[in-house]
Order: sequence, then C-alpha cells, then structure tokens
Amino acid sequence: MKKKDIIQTPAAYIVSTGTVVGSQEKKGPLGSYFGLCDTRDDTFGKPSFEKAESEMQRMALSAAMNKSSLSDSDIDFIFAGDLVNQCISSNYGLADFDVSFFGIYGACSTFAEGMLLSSIFSSFAKKNCAAVTSSHNCTAERQFRFPLEYGAQRTPTSQWTVTGAGAVIISASPKGSDDIRVSDVLGGKVIDAGITDVNNMGAAMAPAAADTIERYLRESGRAPESFDYIVTGDLGFEGSSILKELLNEKGIDIASRHTDCGMEIYDRKKQDMHSGGSGCGCSAAVMTAYYLKRMRNGEIGDMLFIGTGAMMNAMSLQQGNSIPAVAHLVHIVKGR
Amino acid sequence: MKKKDIIQTPAAYIVSTGTVVGSQEKKGPLGSYFGLCDTRDDTFGKPSFEKAESEMQRMALSAAMNKSSLSDSDIDFIFAGDLVNQCISSNYGLADFDVSFFGIYGACSTFAEGMLLSSIFSSFAKKNCAAVTSSHNCTAERQFRFPLEYGAQRTPTSQWTVTGAGAVIISASPKGSDDIRVSDVLGGKVIDAGITDVNNMGAAMAPAAADTIERYLRESGRAPESFDYIVTGDLGFEGSSILKELLNEKGIDIASRHTDCGMEIYDRKKQDMHSGGSGCGCSAAVMTAYYLKRMRNGEIGDMLFIGTGAMMNAMSLQQGNSIPAVAHLVHIVKGR
Repeated sequence: MKKKDIIQTPAAYIVSTGTVVGSQEKKGPLGSYFGLCDTRDDTFGKPSFEKAESEMQRMALSAAMNKSSLSDSDIDFIFAGDLVNQCISSNYGLADFDVSFFGIYGACSTFAEGMLLSSIFSSFAKKNCAAVTSSHNCTAERQFRFPLEYGAQRTPTSQWTVTGAGAVIISASPKGSDDIRVSDVLGGKVIDAGITDVNNMGAAMAPAAADTIERYLRESGRAPESFDYIVTGDLGFEGSSILKELLNEKGIDIASRHTDCGMEIYDRKKQDMHSGGSGCGCSAAVMTAYYLKRMRNGEIGDMLFIGTGAMMNAMSLQQGNSIPAVAHLVHIVKGR
Repeated sequence: MKKKDIIQTPAAYIVSTGTVVGSQEKKGPLGSYFGLCDTRDDTFGKPSFEKAESEMQRMALSAAMNKSSLSDSDIDFIFAGDLVNQCISSNYGLADFDVSFFGIYGACSTFAEGMLLSSIFSSFAKKNCAAVTSSHNCTAERQFRFPLEYGAQRTPTSQWTVTGAGAVIISASPKGSDDIRVSDVLGGKVIDAGITDVNNMGAAMAPAAADTIERYLRESGRAPESFDYIVTGDLGFEGSSILKELLNEKGIDIASRHTDCGMEIYDRKKQDMHSGGSGCGCSAAVMTAYYLKRMRNGEIGDMLFIGTGAMMNAMSLQQGNSIPAVAHLVHIVKGR
C-alpha cells in the first residue's frame, strides 16, 4: 500500500484569531481588515524594535484569547516562533502566559507549522492550542541584511519584511454556527534548489511550495479548481511566478486559484515594496485578519494555505551555502 | 475538576538512538559510551564548524535509522533544532532526508522538546518520529560570546558548550523484548527569574526546572525516591545546586535521585570545564548514549528527564533583558 502523508485532523476548530500590524501594513489594501496597529512609529511604545515585536506577539495572542473567552488555564499548548535569533520575540513576548510553551522555527513557514502542529494536537490529544508568530521590518532588516541607518538599495526581486503578528487558537471543540476548521495537513520536506541570492527568497522557496502542493494534489486526488483558493505565504511576485511555472512543468495549473499573502499585503504601485511582503508576520497577519475572516463570513468555503520558509542565516550565505526551504500545508474548510 | 497537565503517551517506544561527539567529550568519563566522534579537530572533515555541526546531526540520525532498520519512507516526522542562528545546523544537516521536517527551538531543552512532541505524535497520530539536535563548542562560543581566537577567560559559573549531537527514533510499534518507552510528558512554561548574567545559565534555568518538576510530582502524586533517576540537562553544577535549594524550599528533596547531564559529561577535576557542560548536544548525547543505553540494558527502570533551555540571545542581554527559561519533562520507563 502506498504510504499516506496527508494527516486527517478531525477535531481542529479555529475558534479565534488575533492580528497586530505596523504602519505600512495598515496603509496597504488590506488595511481595513487590520484592527490593532501602531500607525505612528511601529514601536508599540517600547524602547527597542525587538521589544516592539515581542509586544506584538503578546497583543495578538491576548486578542485571540479575549475573542474566544478562553483564559490561560484553558489553553494547553502554545506553539510560537519568529525570525529574530533564538526566537526571542516569542520567548519574551509570551512569557507572561501561564501555558506550556513550545518554540518552533520554520522561517516564514512558522505560522503554517504552528497551525499544523496545533491541528494534530487538537485532533488527537484533545488539547486547545495557540499558534503565534511575528516579524518586524526593523528587527529583521538589521539582523539579516544591513543596518537600518545605512539605507541600502533593494533589488527588484527582494521582498519587504512585514511588521505584523498573528495568533490563532485551535480547539477540539467547535465554537458555534460559523465554524471553520483545519480538515487535514501535509508536512513539508527540506528542499534545496541551489539558490544563493539572499535578495531572491521567492526563488529559494518556490520549489518547496511546488513539492508540497504537488504531493498534496496527487495524494488527495483533487484538482486545483476544486478549491476556492490556494494561498501561499510568502513567495511574493517573483516566487509565485516561479511556483506556477514549476507546477506547469508537472502538468498542474493552479493559476486560477492561486494567490500569495506577500502579493496581497501591500499596494504594488503605490507602496513600492518590490516583490511583495515576507516574514513570519506576513502570512500570519493576512491569514488571521483577511482569509480566515472571509471564511467565517461565508465568502470562502474551502482553501489550502501553504506556508513557505527560507531556512538559511546571514552567516550560512557568507560561508557559500545555498538556501534550503520548507513548505507546510494546512487545508481549511468552512463548517463541521 | 483540577486540570491535568501531564499527558499520557501510551504508544511512544524508543526504538533506536544515534550519538556523535567531539574530542573533549570522548576524553570525558562517558567516553567509552560514545562511538561516533572526531578526536582530531572536531571538524568532521568539513570546512567550517557550522558545517561540522550539520554533519554531526546527519550522522546521528543516520546512525539511529541504521540501528532501527527504518528508512526515510518509514519516518513520518523529524523534529530538530539547534543553537545556531535560525537553526541552520538542523536545516542543512537534515536536508538530505526525504522526511517531513519541523524546526523546533528550545535552546538546551530542544532535545526534550523533540522527544515530548515525538511521543505525542507517535501515541496519538501513530507516526514514527525522529528527534534530533546538536551543539558545537566552536559555533556556539563565537555566536553567543567571543571570537574563538580571543581566548576569553571564563567565570566559575560558566558552562562549556558540548560538541555533540543526538537522535532518537520514537515509534508507535514496540521493537523487541528490550523496549523502553516514554510513558507520559509534561510541557514546560516560560519562567523568567530575572537573571541577567550570561555566564550563569544554570541560575536562569533552575527555576524553570523546579517549576516543571514540582508540577509533575504534585500531579502524579509520586515521590522523588520512586524514580531511579531524575536527570536534568543541562543545569551544570551551579544550576543543579540552585534547583535542589528551590525544591527544598517547597518541601521536595530530589538529592538522592538527581543528576545532570552537564555534570556527567566532563571530568570536573581533570577537564576543568567550570560549571559543567551545556548546549543542545549535551543532554542529547548523554541521554542517547548513556542513560537510554543503561535503561535498555536493564540497569535503570524508571526515570524522569527534564531538558532545560535558556531562551535569550546575545542582543537581548545587551538590550538589558533578563534570561527567560523553559523546562520540558519526559518520563521514560523500561518495558511495555
């Protein structure tokens, strides 16, 4: 018998979400969907950008808990991670919650990884889980690329790290009549396509997304058209174009259903973010505030979300390595 | 009803392990237990210490898979992480395995976190999981503290980052008559006791270990003496002493059963590693090669393993933060 990689998650209800964004994200086309934000200076009242990012995670999870009427004692596990070295945004930001804490790291796929692990824990161990992640343009830029003050020029293929955080609470018990849930998941494998350009993350991540999407469609036997949306996060314009080409070569055409969180969060003409948004906070914010909300409203019934992560660090590229990537998939549906 | 935090893991068999260490570890008191090693220059034939650390993870997982006669297609999930920024030792080291990859980060608690998550996935989703982690003295020192060439003096409370990697394969199916298994687990919470001294990680981590151990003993109703061992990893001499004091204040005396992987791996007098070993690879190597082996041999029947992690980064301390910590517990028993 052929091995099954897709895991059914029969009890993984998305009971609430929380989203926090910065000023650029609030100004973008999805701005009206974002409630909690700092439109002043993206510091959220904190003395460093790192502390601001931690605060965003704390706010996002608090917002999700408030909406769900769940308290610390009702949540069994937190899965959280971020882009800052040793995931400190999560470690410091969520230290106040009296909940078991599991650090995860999947670069920009971290939100999908957290949703995937939460859905399995919820379905099989009957636990209430929270998945939380964030990114901040000013913490990521100076850590991965150049000092902020340097004002480095960016290449056309580069993506803009989103200032944002998202939290989702997944429970074995449904919430009400407007339920949305994760019905099944597929874990990603590490794929290294040999890309070495740190300014072209999309090209590094697209092969991982293509691998995961192809495996999912073949094993599930479903056509791309049978979904309302196939949402990647975050390949941006460059990576999305490569993803569609790679899948076309395999005879799979997702063009009519595909979109990408990194292409949606900024106005390409007015905001000039080059190849789009990136960072753990991009898909976390766009999924929690926009797609999951539209699903709860009944506008979307059935979608795939594929989180993609580029798994290098600044030094590994200086040492001549290419960029390995991973893409985790969660299948989200409306109704029980 | 009081909420239960301990999770029973009825089908989490430890079917095999793999261990790789460097030269200092091979010279230590557990040296005869360590098979795979580089006693020459700790590079494992690679051009950088970072690539050496990746190679150690690859070797450790390969060794575990060979011993279990499981191949890539039999393993469903890898949980892996390490101390290098963005966990690149795992990302690069395990990219060759054709297995779903979930990055985790819990600093020195990463091995316990991986065992805990693997045990839950194995028991409830019936998946074969591998938990892998590593540390390398030469990658950690230059990243967290000083350039290697600087030859910085170390304080008496400082711990020596172990050069080592460990892998464990946990399956829902028992292996044979010498079975050992994880019977239950308890996730750790983030505890920040206000310690800011980067040269005293033991003091930062001891309160997290005390919290997890106290919660476990109270909920399970068991006395410390009912276990053969209560093994922490890695508090070292300083942190272990603080842990026992903290628990004594709560009326809990673990002294007769407690030991710590960081206290065992080096000869305190001859090797002069100050407060003992640390790093993800310390508990991973000591658990896989020494404690789990002794358990399989029938020398140990029932033990607690508590992995402890200090969750700061170099910059967070420069910015004036204290060191948050976490401690995850796995309860390991001999027999089905």
